[in-house]
Amino acid sequence: MMNLIIIENHELNDGNVTLSDHRCTHIRKVLRSKPGDTIKIGLLNGSIGHGTIIKLSKSEVLLEIILTEKPPATPQTDLILALPRPIMLKRILSQATQMGVRNIYLINANRVEKSFFNASALQEESINTFLKRGLEQAIDTRVPTVSIHSRFRPFVEDYLPEIMTSENTLGLIGHPSSENSLSETATNLFEKQILLAIGPEGGWVDFEITKFHEQGFFSFSMGQRILRVDSAVPALMAQVQLLRELKE
Amino acid sequence: MMNLIIIENHELNDGNVTLSDHRCTHIRKVLRSKPGDTIKIGLLNGSIGHGTIIKLSKSEVLLEIILTEKPPATPQTDLILALPRPIMLKRILSQATQMGVRNIYLINANRVEKSFFNASALQEESINTFLKRGLEQAIDTRVPTVSIHSRFRPFVEDYLPEIMTSENTLGLIGHPSSENSLSETATNLFEKQILLAIGPEGGWVDFEITKFHEQGFFSFSMGQRILRVDSAVPALMAQVQLLRELKE
Repeated sequence: MMNLIIIENHELNDGNVTLSDHRCTHIRKVLRSKPGDTIKIGLLNGSIGHGTIIKLSKSEVLLEIILTEKPPATPQTDLILALPRPIMLKRILSQATQMGVRNIYLINANRVEKSFFNASALQEESINTFLKRGLEQAIDTRVPTVSIHSRFRPFVEDYLPEIMTSENTLGLIGHPSSENSLSETATNLFEKQILLAIGPEGGWVDFEITKFHEQGFFSFSMGQRILRVDSAVPALMAQVQLLRELKE
Repeated sequence: MMNLIIIENHELNDGNVTLSDHRCTHIRKVLRSKPGDTIKIGLLNGSIGHGTIIKLSKSEVLLEIILTEKPPATPQTDLILALPRPIMLKRILSQATQMGVRNIYLINANRVEKSFFNASALQEESINTFLKRGLEQAIDTRVPTVSIHSRFRPFVEDYLPEIMTSENTLGLIGHPSSENSLSETATNLFEKQILLAIGPEGGWVDFEITKFHEQGFFSFSMGQRILRVDSAVPALMAQVQLLRELKE
């Protein structure tokens, strides 16, 4: 659902914007707005405010934009995701963005099908579409960064140490056979940026868990129930958020 | 993902079962099992155990079944859901079942499109399919009950009081403009069955919130971000689960 209409800087012209795409359709057909009405507007990676409808036709809407509120704070959660199948990836990019994520690392793993790395869902345009849907839903304007890492070892051995040392990061990896729950694993550490690693269908293999442990990651289990990734991502991000709230 | 193959009581014949449908295909093509291999099997609404492959052909597999473990405990969470659009309903039935839910009440609300109640996704067979997918994913055998309530007032005025008084139930309703978070709302009440009400796209209207409050429900907000229902359901159920864990 489009709870926020997002415009880009290059579309702004002297404080006005003209929309003629699906956003115009949304304003006409879903919001059923008329001239003089105001609509919630956000500037991509910028402020939030509103637009007043100056002119409205079947094909175009002209809005006067006033941006007054800062966007929500940058999320303190980053996500490492074993690359899911394309249809799932689209949904998860939107879900993670809704929940609030800063960086998403899509990585290879033993149980990731190699063909997933050739999917059109990995093209920048497709990724941006689904990130934007998440922002429109959650009323946010900050686009997460997404990077793709098609080889597991270079990611975990070379790239990950840089992420871990450049900031005060707590690495957590979901693993059903771990004996600790998230709340046991993530105690007293909530000043930190959380880097949450979620495995592929079928889970991480032992070698992968070992490699993450070598980088200082703690593993945890959400219990005996095995969740599909489109449930696991919102569930785990929500638990991290709640734990952070409780520690504050 | 089918982490558990579910069989029904009427399929059992002297401790054996013959499968010839998608479960046979799964055993052959995904698990790539051979005679002598054992496979995780659950009896619908019953125990969990394993099946040993006795015979395997292109069209049929014969398994000898031994059921030794009890299924996971009955979930202490029930869900009231403003009926979502059909494609979303299917996903959510599976997600909620994965997370663990006992009863699901699908209800009408001001912002539910009336046509959703005529969707084929509401037919018993379709509902059972998606509940079963959730069980297969989460390795559970207890099917949640699903009931459909096409009129809001009779549900909330007549049906809901019976649910609330027949058990030690805590009613919680998600409402973005509430000032309390879930952790503030749900303190010291975790001996109880939780009945979680999640609204339609666009949220509950004030009248509906008032009606739930009259029945003793507490409202809470998950923060400023507005989640789509397929993120809200796993996120809120996961937070309830975590709060319960922390109180135990």
